[in-house]
Amino acid sequence: MSTFNVELKKVVDDSYEIEIGYDLKNKLVSDLEKGLIGNIKKIAVITDSNVRDLYAKEICEAIVDAGYSLDLFVFAAGEKSKTRETKAKIEDAMLEKGYRRDCAILAIGGGVVSDLAGFLAGTFARGVPFINYSTTLLSAADASVGGKTAVDTPLATNLIGLFNQPRKVYIDIETWKSLPQRELHSGMAETIKHACIRSNEMFLFLEQNMEDIYALKKFPCEYITENNCQIKYQVVMKDELESGLREILNLGHTVGRAIETVSDYRLLHGEAVSIGLAAEVLLAARLGYMSEEEADRVIALCQKAGLPTRIPEYIDREALVRKLYTDKKVRDGKLRFVLQKGIGDVVEFGPNVYSTPIEESVAREIIMEL
Amino acid sequence: MSTFNVELKKVVDDSYEIEIGYDLKNKLVSDLEKGLIGNIKKIAVITDSNVRDLYAKEICEAIVDAGYSLDLFVFAAGEKSKTRETKAKIEDAMLEKGYRRDCAILAIGGGVVSDLAGFLAGTFARGVPFINYSTTLLSAADASVGGKTAVDTPLATNLIGLFNQPRKVYIDIETWKSLPQRELHSGMAETIKHACIRSNEMFLFLEQNMEDIYALKKFPCEYITENNCQIKYQVVMKDELESGLREILNLGHTVGRAIETVSDYRLLHGEAVSIGLAAEVLLAARLGYMSEEEADRVIALCQKAGLPTRIPEYIDREALVRKLYTDKKVRDGKLRFVLQKGIGDVVEFGPNVYSTPIEESVAREIIMEL
Ligand SMILES: NC(=O)c1ccc[n+]([C@@H]2O[C@H](COP(=O)([O-])OP(=O)(O)OC[C@H]3O[C@@H](n4cnc5c(N)ncnc54)[C@H](O)[C@@H]3O)[C@@H](O)[C@H]2O)c1
Ligand SMILES: NC(=O)c1ccc[n+]([C@@H]2O[C@H](COP(=O)([O-])OP(=O)(O)OC[C@H]3O[C@@H](n4cnc5c(N)ncnc54)[C@H](O)[C@@H]3O)[C@@H](O)[C@H]2O)c1
Repeated sequence: MSTFNVELKKVVDDSYEIEIGYDLKNKLVSDLEKGLIGNIKKIAVITDSNVRDLYAKEICEAIVDAGYSLDLFVFAAGEKSKTRETKAKIEDAMLEKGYRRDCAILAIGGGVVSDLAGFLAGTFARGVPFINYSTTLLSAADASVGGKTAVDTPLATNLIGLFNQPRKVYIDIETWKSLPQRELHSGMAETIKHACIRSNEMFLFLEQNMEDIYALKKFPCEYITENNCQIKYQVVMKDELESGLREILNLGHTVGRAIETVSDYRLLHGEAVSIGLAAEVLLAARLGYMSEEEADRVIALCQKAGLPTRIPEYIDREALVRKLYTDKKVRDGKLRFVLQKGIGDVVEFGPNVYSTPIEESVAREIIMEL
Repeated sequence: MSTFNVELKKVVDDSYEIEIGYDLKNKLVSDLEKGLIGNIKKIAVITDSNVRDLYAKEICEAIVDAGYSLDLFVFAAGEKSKTRETKAKIEDAMLEKGYRRDCAILAIGGGVVSDLAGFLAGTFARGVPFINYSTTLLSAADASVGGKTAVDTPLATNLIGLFNQPRKVYIDIETWKSLPQRELHSGMAETIKHACIRSNEMFLFLEQNMEDIYALKKFPCEYITENNCQIKYQVVMKDELESGLREILNLGHTVGRAIETVSDYRLLHGEAVSIGLAAEVLLAARLGYMSEEEADRVIALCQKAGLPTRIPEYIDREALVRKLYTDKKVRDGKLRFVLQKGIGDVVEFGPNVYSTPIEESVAREIIMEL
């Protein structure tokens, strides 16, 4: 018996820029010309059936005009398309058109497009450069930092995928103008969550500027976008040092995800998270981690953002309580919640532990009231 | 317009050990107990229909006895199974059995199993630990170093996949005893190739010990396995510094892969590579990079290894010449070959360029003669 040591220690630099602004196609083209993807001249653009005509075609024209060769791969809009099958279809279409190692992938769309296209880019020819052009508030707030990509399968959401950092992300606020109002509001939930866990200042800003944000005014939209990136980045980066801090991004999601499932996806993710935030501030207030007044401010902000804060009548509340036990944080059969501490902070239950064990009876009480 | 910088520079250590020996299941179990996969107690074992009864069941028993929970996922043996569909089926079966983030993947088998299982491990829950227990000479020689994993699609071989370094590789020489003779011989082709490109000493050793290797004697089998790992590691590592050296692993593969395809896979990969090596030493001798005598020694060694060195009658030689143009090394419509220089070295055509442009007429001559 003998052993051979394969030494593979190295410095990896996956750093990238997020460009935040209005109508960024010319910026994208000039970045390409400045070498964003090296000498690569062939770009597979992936988008969905809604975004194609709204933005993708125009962006593609600008890229083609700059001398790149490009094909557009379009799938039916919606979470239902975020599957291994859609990924395989696009791969086959790319291979059919002669794409091999020497290409890059550009995603244009929301989180469904970037999750799918980022995953595809990470496994096409064992990884080709990936650029993300984001067109939804949700993906701007939550999918631009962290490098997570994935698809859904019949038995699990976002479980098959990989970490794949993009070469660059463009957040085009201009595109939010065509978002259905419900989608825009839903995207605001993660923004509010970021303020709740990390920034009292951002929370105040949201209270004072919600109308201007929804009117897509430049300063407030850029401000919240930068803060979203900043907060998510700091939480995820610190977590890379194994601090477990990432858990705090689950604020509102324990109840939120359960409601989303029990509602059979009648509620959008952000709507469910908003109700989850409401439930969890009531819980935090009951346990003394925040004042009643602070809890009310969180609920009022969600309402101001056009989001629901009460559990809809059609939801079976007992089923909801049972559903809580499928949460990832459950340990030894006990429910655990991320709890807000005042506004802009979370409870650290123990060293590097950010979820707090909660008796089912207490959780049930809140759910029955809400 | 503003930009946000996501800084992601870090030191990554993917180093791992390759254990080389006879019947390594106890070693595997003791490594698990020593923390090879941390606290993980749930292992998905992936194997094929041949290896299941031969080795996988026994290894699984030893692991279960040590207190791990485990399921065996088996697919039909053969390259035809190395697909996205097989990967998806195993993923679904794992999810069905409750596998989530907290598991590891153990591949037991040859290169088909490790390519598929390594890819699956890299995308299951965005990456779970992967261990490879190799049972073929080919995968010992060629698939244990480099981290390449992939599946085939209707339009391309090994194109969808990723780099995923295993936690550890076990090369169990004992298992070679049950390999069909043709598979064993085929696996020897990459071993001979390694000697040809990098080690005159290993080449001499192969000339003198082929019978003992095929009798699976301990010293010669361990010697060639270590040398295979060493040579592949050094070539691949140097290539990480962008030297382009990896190209030399293509020795014998320009003609080899073309023959494999034109034969419609009647020839095994190693058999085709052996014929490719023969063609390419004739070419190198004709161009003065090696003596006739050296070329004869390479051909004689392949024959001693039980490998074909002539193009079979049924191959359409003109189709073969045309097929050469689908090689990845073709540049500006010109054929390029990796050429052996003496025994144990290759021609460096230019700085960091290891393929040499060859006139079609010269390549045709060799192919017509062989
Ligand atoms: N990777 C991550 O870190 C991360 C984080 C959060 C969410 N996600 C994923 O993101 C997805 C949700 O994101 P999403 O809400 O952006 O989904 P989405 O991409 O499906 O977009 C929502 C809808 O809006 C449409 N749309 C997109 N841009 C538009 C525009 N500018 N104008 C009009 N319509 C537009 C889409 O076609 C779709 O119908 C989920 O799959 C979720 O899992 C990923
Ligand atoms: N990842 C890499 O770097 C790399 C390098 C070289 C080859 N490969 C891949 O490896 C594959 C070829 O490898 P392979 O020849 O090991 O293929 P394989 O896994 O299909 O094994 C060949 C055959 O031998 C059987 N077998 C395996 N072990 C046995 C044993 N001990 N006794 C009896 N039968 C046994 C298998 O069931 C199969 O029928 C190809 O798909 C190729 O692309 C990958």
